[in-house]
Amino acid sequence: MKIIKNGCVTTPIGFKAGGFGCGIKKEGLDLGMIYSEIPAATAIMATTNIVKAAPILWCKEVMKNPVKQTVIVNSGNANACTGEQGMTDVLATAKKVGEVLGIEPESVLVASTGVIGLPLPVGKILSGIESLVPILGFSEEDGLSAATAILTTDTMIKTVGVEIEIQGVTVKIGGMAKGSGMIHPNMATMLSFVTTDVAIEVDVLQDLLNETTIDSYNMISVDGDTSTNDMVTVMANGMAGNIKLKKNAPDFEIFKEAFIYVHKSLAKQIIRDGEGATKFLEVNVRGAKTKEDARTLAKSVVTSSLVKTAMFGEDANWGRVLCALGYSGAIFDPLKVSLVFSSQIGMITLLNDGFPIAFDEAEAKKVLSETDIIITVELQEGYEKAVAWGCDLSYDYVKINGDYRS
Amino acid sequence: MKIIKNGCVTTPIGFKAGGFGCGIKKEGLDLGMIYSEIPAATAIMATTNIVKAAPILWCKEVMKNPVKQTVIVNSGNANACTGEQGMTDVLATAKKVGEVLGIEPESVLVASTGVIGLPLPVGKILSGIESLVPILGFSEEDGLSAATAILTTDTMIKTVGVEIEIQGVTVKIGGMAKGSGMIHPNMATMLSFVTTDVAIEVDVLQDLLNETTIDSYNMISVDGDTSTNDMVTVMANGMAGNIKLKKNAPDFEIFKEAFIYVHKSLAKQIIRDGEGATKFLEVNVRGAKTKEDARTLAKSVVTSSLVKTAMFGEDANWGRVLCALGYSGAIFDPLKVSLVFSSQIGMITLLNDGFPIAFDEAEAKKVLSETDIIITVELQEGYEKAVAWGCDLSYDYVKINGDYRS
Repeated sequence: MKIIKNGCVTTPIGFKAGGFGCGIKKEGLDLGMIYSEIPAATAIMATTNIVKAAPILWCKEVMKNPVKQTVIVNSGNANACTGEQGMTDVLATAKKVGEVLGIEPESVLVASTGVIGLPLPVGKILSGIESLVPILGFSEEDGLSAATAILTTDTMIKTVGVEIEIQGVTVKIGGMAKGSGMIHPNMATMLSFVTTDVAIEVDVLQDLLNETTIDSYNMISVDGDTSTNDMVTVMANGMAGNIKLKKNAPDFEIFKEAFIYVHKSLAKQIIRDGEGATKFLEVNVRGAKTKEDARTLAKSVVTSSLVKTAMFGEDANWGRVLCALGYSGAIFDPLKVSLVFSSQIGMITLLNDGFPIAFDEAEAKKVLSETDIIITVELQEGYEKAVAWGCDLSYDYVKINGDYRS
Repeated sequence: MKIIKNGCVTTPIGFKAGGFGCGIKKEGLDLGMIYSEIPAATAIMATTNIVKAAPILWCKEVMKNPVKQTVIVNSGNANACTGEQGMTDVLATAKKVGEVLGIEPESVLVASTGVIGLPLPVGKILSGIESLVPILGFSEEDGLSAATAILTTDTMIKTVGVEIEIQGVTVKIGGMAKGSGMIHPNMATMLSFVTTDVAIEVDVLQDLLNETTIDSYNMISVDGDTSTNDMVTVMANGMAGNIKLKKNAPDFEIFKEAFIYVHKSLAKQIIRDGEGATKFLEVNVRGAKTKEDARTLAKSVVTSSLVKTAMFGEDANWGRVLCALGYSGAIFDPLKVSLVFSSQIGMITLLNDGFPIAFDEAEAKKVLSETDIIITVELQEGYEKAVAWGCDLSYDYVKINGDYRS
C-alpha cells in the first residue's frame, strides 16, 4: 500500500470535487461537492441518534438504490430539528444538483453540518450550486477545496489517499472528513466521504463499511455527544478497471486493508483536531475476555472527563483510568490489571498485576508532556484487544462550546 | 415536615459525631465519625463500579448483619486500588474504633474518599481515632465538624435535618454528604451518611433506601464518572420511641416523604457544589412512555458536555438538548417534543410540538444568566416523568482536575 501525499477525494480516477463560499458562514468556503463521472456503487452509515437531520433522512430514503453519482455538503447549518421545511429544503437541494449536472435527484446524497435548529438558508445553497458545478475539477487542489468547505470549528482539513495493486491493476482510495465537536459516533459518525475507483459488488462494499466503522469511527470520542448529522459515505465507481471485487476474491484482503487504513486515518485526524485538544490519546486494551469487552473498556477510558483532564494537566493520576475501566460495564478482575502510560520519550508502569508500582513523578510528567500519549491496559482475562482514540479536555473545549453560535 | 436549620447527623436523638485533623490532608479536618449510643438498624448502597475500594468491600462484608453502631470516614485518600494492604488497613481501622469505643469491629462501617492508588496512611488514622473518640459530641457543632472532615475538593459542607411526627412521636432525620467530582452515581453514590432516631424494620429501611436512591443520587451527574468509593449509609437507632415502622404502617408515608426529602436535598447540594460549577441545572422530562425512559432522557441531557458548556456560556443552544435526548437510547418522536428553558426571572419556549419557536436572544441570555436553570422537555409519548440534576462545565472543572494530586 502506498500512501499518497495530499491524497484526497479526487485521488481515485473519475472523481471531481470542489468548494465554494455561498454565504452560509460569515466567511470562507461552506459548500462542497464530490461528483463521479459515472454512477458509483455506494455505501453509507448514518447516525443512530433518534433525532436525525433532514439530509440523513433523505440519504436513508434514496439509498434504497445504492448507486449514486454525487454528494453535496454544506457547513454552517446542520438542517436538523427543522421539521417539514428541512425536508423540503433537502429535496430542493438534490433537485437543483440533479438539474445542473443532468442526473436524477435520487442519485444525489446530501449532507449538512453546523448549528442545529436554524432554518437552512436554501436560497444561498441553490445559487451556490450553480456557481460550484462549473468549477468542479479532478485536481488535488479541487479535492482539498471540497475538504475545506465541509469544516466547522475544525482547525485543519482532514484528507487521506492511498494506492494499491489488485489483479495487476492500480486501485486508489481517497477520503475527507470533518469533525471537531459533538463527536462520539455510534454505528456511524460525523461527516466522512470516501471515494475509490475500485470495481466492487455494492453489498460487499456496504458490509465492509459496517465492519470498518466499528473499529474506526466508533472507537473515537471527543466529547461523548453523538451528533444528529453523523454520516460516512463511500462511492466506488469501478473506473480502475479491476474485475468486480466479491468477498473472498483474490486480492480482496489487500483492498480491505487499504480501506480500513483510510477510515482509521480519517477517524484519527478528527481526534487530533478535537475541539480544544492539546493531546492525542490512544487507549489500548489487551487480554480481554471478548472483543466487545475490549472495545467497551477502551472507550470508557477515552471518554472519561477525569482521565481527559488529567492528561491535559500531564498528571499521572492512573487511578482514574482504573475507575473508568471499573464502571464501563465489562467484567474483569482489578487485581490482575497492568497499566502503562507511554509516549515517544519513554514509558511508566503504574500497576502490575493489580499492584501499584512506585514511580518517579518528574519522569512521569516528562512522559506525559508529549502530545501523543498511549495508555495500555493488560487485563489477563483472555486474548481479545481493542484500541480507542480520544483527546484531552482543555479550557479551550469549554471556551469553544460556551458560545458556539455567536 | 419541619426543616431544621443547620440540621445534620447529630440532629436525631442518640447520635454523636465529630471531626479531627490527623494529617492525611495537608491541612484541615480529615477524619470524621458518627456514633449511635445504641446499635442501629442500618442500610447501605455501594458503588456498582467493579473496581471497589477496600472500605466498600469491608462494608459489604459486614453488612451481612445489618445492625451497626458507628461510621468512620477519612478524606484525602480513597484506599482504592491498594490491593491486600488496603484490606489490612481497613481491618486495622475498624479494630481500633471497636477497641476505643468498646464495640465489635464488625459493628463499624468504614468509608474513604480522596486520591486513588496511594497507600492509606493508616498510622495517622489509628492515632487519629484515639484523639477523635473522646471529643465526639451530640451538638450541632459536632455534626458540622464531621461534615467538614469528609470533604475533598468540595467548597462547602452538605448537611440536612428534618423533623416529623409519627404516631404522636417526634422523629428526626439528619444527614451529611461529600461530592464535587467523580460524580455520576449508579445504584449508589459518592459519600452520604444519614442518621435517624426512628424505629424501623431493617428490611423496610433497606428497601426504602434502594427506592430513594434511584430518584435522588442516581439522577445527578457532575462529570459522568462513577467513583470506586460511592456509598450511602443510613442508621436508624429507634430512640425516638415510635412503634417499629413496617411497610404500610400508619404514618409510614410521612416518614418516607421526609426520608426522600433528606436524600434529594443532599444529592442537590452535591450538584450545587460540583467541581467548577457556576450553574445548577434541573432537567424535567415529562410525558415519557415509561419511567425508565424519562430517567434515561433526563440523565442524557444533564450529562451532555455540549449542553453543560452551552449553559456555562449562557447560550440558548437548544439543539444540543434535542441531540442529547436523541442519542440517549430511549425511543420518542422528535416531531412531538416541546422544550422550555426557564429561571426565576422568566421562561423561553424553544420548541413547540417539534416546531422551532423564534425567540429573542437578549431575553434568552437574560434568563440563562441566572444561577438556577430549569430545562423542561414534554414528549407527549405517555404520562411518566423524571427529574435529573447537574451543573455546567466550566474552565474551573478543567483546572481543578488537570492537576488534582498536587
